[in-house]
Amino acid sequence: MATEALATWTTNLTFTTLPPDVKTAAIRSFYNWAGCTVGGSAHPATSIARKALSRFSGPPTSRLLGSEGSVDVDAMHAALFNGIASHVHDYDDTHLDTIIHPTGPVASALLAVAESLERIVSGEEFITALVAGVEAECKVGLGVWPDHYDVGWHITSSTGSIGAAVAVSKLLSLSTTQTAHAIGLAATQVTGLREMFGSHTKSFHPGRAAQNGLLAAILASEDYTSSTIGLEAKRGWANVVSTSNQLDAQINSLAPNGRWEIAQNAFKPFPCGIVVHPIIDGCVLVHEELTRMGLSVDQIVEVQAEVHPLVLELTGKKTPKDGLEGKFSVYHGGAVGLLFGKATPAQYEDRIVTDPQVVDIRDRIQATIDEKLRADECHITVLFKKEDGEHVTIEKHVDHAVGSLERPMTDAQLVEKFVDQCIPVLGQERTEKASQWCWDLEKHQDVRQIKTVL
Amino acid sequence: MATEALATWTTNLTFTTLPPDVKTAAIRSFYNWAGCTVGGSAHPATSIARKALSRFSGPPTSRLLGSEGSVDVDAMHAALFNGIASHVHDYDDTHLDTIIHPTGPVASALLAVAESLERIVSGEEFITALVAGVEAECKVGLGVWPDHYDVGWHITSSTGSIGAAVAVSKLLSLSTTQTAHAIGLAATQVTGLREMFGSHTKSFHPGRAAQNGLLAAILASEDYTSSTIGLEAKRGWANVVSTSNQLDAQINSLAPNGRWEIAQNAFKPFPCGIVVHPIIDGCVLVHEELTRMGLSVDQIVEVQAEVHPLVLELTGKKTPKDGLEGKFSVYHGGAVGLLFGKATPAQYEDRIVTDPQVVDIRDRIQATIDEKLRADECHITVLFKKEDGEHVTIEKHVDHAVGSLERPMTDAQLVEKFVDQCIPVLGQERTEKASQWCWDLEKHQDVRQIKTVL
Repeated sequence: MATEALATWTTNLTFTTLPPDVKTAAIRSFYNWAGCTVGGSAHPATSIARKALSRFSGPPTSRLLGSEGSVDVDAMHAALFNGIASHVHDYDDTHLDTIIHPTGPVASALLAVAESLERIVSGEEFITALVAGVEAECKVGLGVWPDHYDVGWHITSSTGSIGAAVAVSKLLSLSTTQTAHAIGLAATQVTGLREMFGSHTKSFHPGRAAQNGLLAAILASEDYTSSTIGLEAKRGWANVVSTSNQLDAQINSLAPNGRWEIAQNAFKPFPCGIVVHPIIDGCVLVHEELTRMGLSVDQIVEVQAEVHPLVLELTGKKTPKDGLEGKFSVYHGGAVGLLFGKATPAQYEDRIVTDPQVVDIRDRIQATIDEKLRADECHITVLFKKEDGEHVTIEKHVDHAVGSLERPMTDAQLVEKFVDQCIPVLGQERTEKASQWCWDLEKHQDVRQIKTVL
Repeated sequence: MATEALATWTTNLTFTTLPPDVKTAAIRSFYNWAGCTVGGSAHPATSIARKALSRFSGPPTSRLLGSEGSVDVDAMHAALFNGIASHVHDYDDTHLDTIIHPTGPVASALLAVAESLERIVSGEEFITALVAGVEAECKVGLGVWPDHYDVGWHITSSTGSIGAAVAVSKLLSLSTTQTAHAIGLAATQVTGLREMFGSHTKSFHPGRAAQNGLLAAILASEDYTSSTIGLEAKRGWANVVSTSNQLDAQINSLAPNGRWEIAQNAFKPFPCGIVVHPIIDGCVLVHEELTRMGLSVDQIVEVQAEVHPLVLELTGKKTPKDGLEGKFSVYHGGAVGLLFGKATPAQYEDRIVTDPQVVDIRDRIQATIDEKLRADECHITVLFKKEDGEHVTIEKHVDHAVGSLERPMTDAQLVEKFVDQCIPVLGQERTEKASQWCWDLEKHQDVRQIKTVL
């Protein structure tokens, strides 16, 4: 029985049984989450939610990462606001087999509740609970993949509630039965329709998932009852949200029986859907080459990008009207790669997406589907017309985009990404301290100390 | 486009355009909701939620109906707790064509927010917003019925979030675009799996739906963006949560083009699923006859109940172990009808469900399906063995159960139900005042005055 098996696995998990690569993956996941959360803390999707909802916060216990001064709220609202911020730039992490962005819902709930407890929570405990949550959401996600995503669920949040509930149940040392009830309570709050992509509501999803899971575990901790077969029952989660169901097999493959999913977690080098990454990667390479050759992007006649079919299905927006829509435009991604040689949140600001020079380059990009390509692969051909009328072609083939499991972000690249996001918010000195604190997560005796640096 | 059409209809609705029977239906719905909410206020599903979550409440503004003294919480928590209480005895109202219990999510959100505003909300305004919310949830429910329910969604909460969002949007005078965003934000929080029936989580559903919808409208009021085609888009609500979709037709039939759904709302005479009502009704008739005849229930040899197929699908539990499970047992319903001649929340207390005399009668009841029967119809045959050994048979045919649209609860019956639930909580004097106040809803200049009586 999947729900009880997951609950039992959760209560039995200990820090000492985590392999070194799993601990490393957890720390990298947390580090990347913290940077993204600071980076998204001032985005309208976050700040409007704070403005609208802060009056409903109970006594403050928990930190909004990156906020000025000591702007604290209760754990429920910290989970929501940090969860929104962590995802709003589409810059977070990706479990590539399910395209779940796993750390947002889990870490947002976990840090919020860890700060609210009377007892001290250590880095080791935090990492153990984080791993439990990520494994849970990725395994249940694999259990309903791909039908669940295809029909229209935003799988990050629809599984994220369950991941957050498992993580918080672990941190609160709930019994196996209470954990099963928490899973049921989380499973019954299915949040996230893909139709919301391109609006503030997309990033609301992982924030609400964090809150759903936290709420579920808090209720279960007081013996609120649910179903103990909530995931696998005839009218339980998997059968209601998916037409296929390999839930039992996936729960049976929880590590160490099967693989650790968190070790499969990848980190985004560019703040947009991962299917655009090979094109940006390739266009950055073109940018570098044309700089060497002394060519200008103005001389581009046309760009032909051969891409995986999902690229056009998910990110085929020809004329994005703002930053959020720009994330769903392979054309915008290619244009900023060609023009700026990089794609950071700055290249997804509204004013850049509508900038005439960017629009001009964007409109010269053609994307065509090549069924033979992998999702992290693409082929780019750029035709230039030099001042003397001569035509020049640059071709780039990206075998595996940067950020894929084959070409993972290095620690140094993660630091660069963290620093780039944090400096505008925290300044140089605080950013350096925060970066060190997050890398040292495992060593901390008291994770509440995060409020001294972030 | 369904979402925009619903939003436009909502912003255009005025109190003066409501026909008299719609106003009456709204008042009866509110009255019944208030009584049920008081009646459920001390149930563990409500009290555990309050114990677990009250520490997350912001500054108190809103009343928990039936609580002693001035136990107020913020609007978000009042919506949740009142919503749970309103449903926990399965004694609320039913829109029979969808088996949605419509008032719980809508009124719980609406009263909570009405009390939290700086301005005064009149009874007329409240009724208008209540009608808007109930029409919205019932029309979208009809748009996905029956597939949506069949696959396993608890349709009361999965549509209730949308109803609550529409009601609160109306009360807050949101623009049509903001209302559409609120609908999208509510639609993306799909709460309620039928697997949770029989546990505390079932009544959590309408409470969370109230909160989801309230949250959605509050966010939209600050221009948080969502989709403006959230209900009807390819990967929007209807297509994700149902395999069939008559959404456009249903939204086009919003009154006055089509019928007012709130006028179809029925009220439960018995605190359990409506499919059990004909059996209880018939068994109460048997109880009355055997009393006249001087027979005792101990003399029952066997009871044959011919029922609609849904009765056994939904309420076929042979050996319920507590009050919540008793609601899903046609056998328990029949037993208390025979034994006590009534079924109120008192007959669904845990100690009654496990009482040996009740269990003894329950085990003599056989239910068989008759495909020709309507859902509100049944045929009951009771065989008695008199002291002298003679066999006597009593037969009762219930054509339409009490509480159906053909035999609606009268105002006097609604008062009896209200009083029966409120007296143990409020005492005689407060109950009478509260009853009068709720009937007079339309006349009140300031609905916040409810806290002086409930």
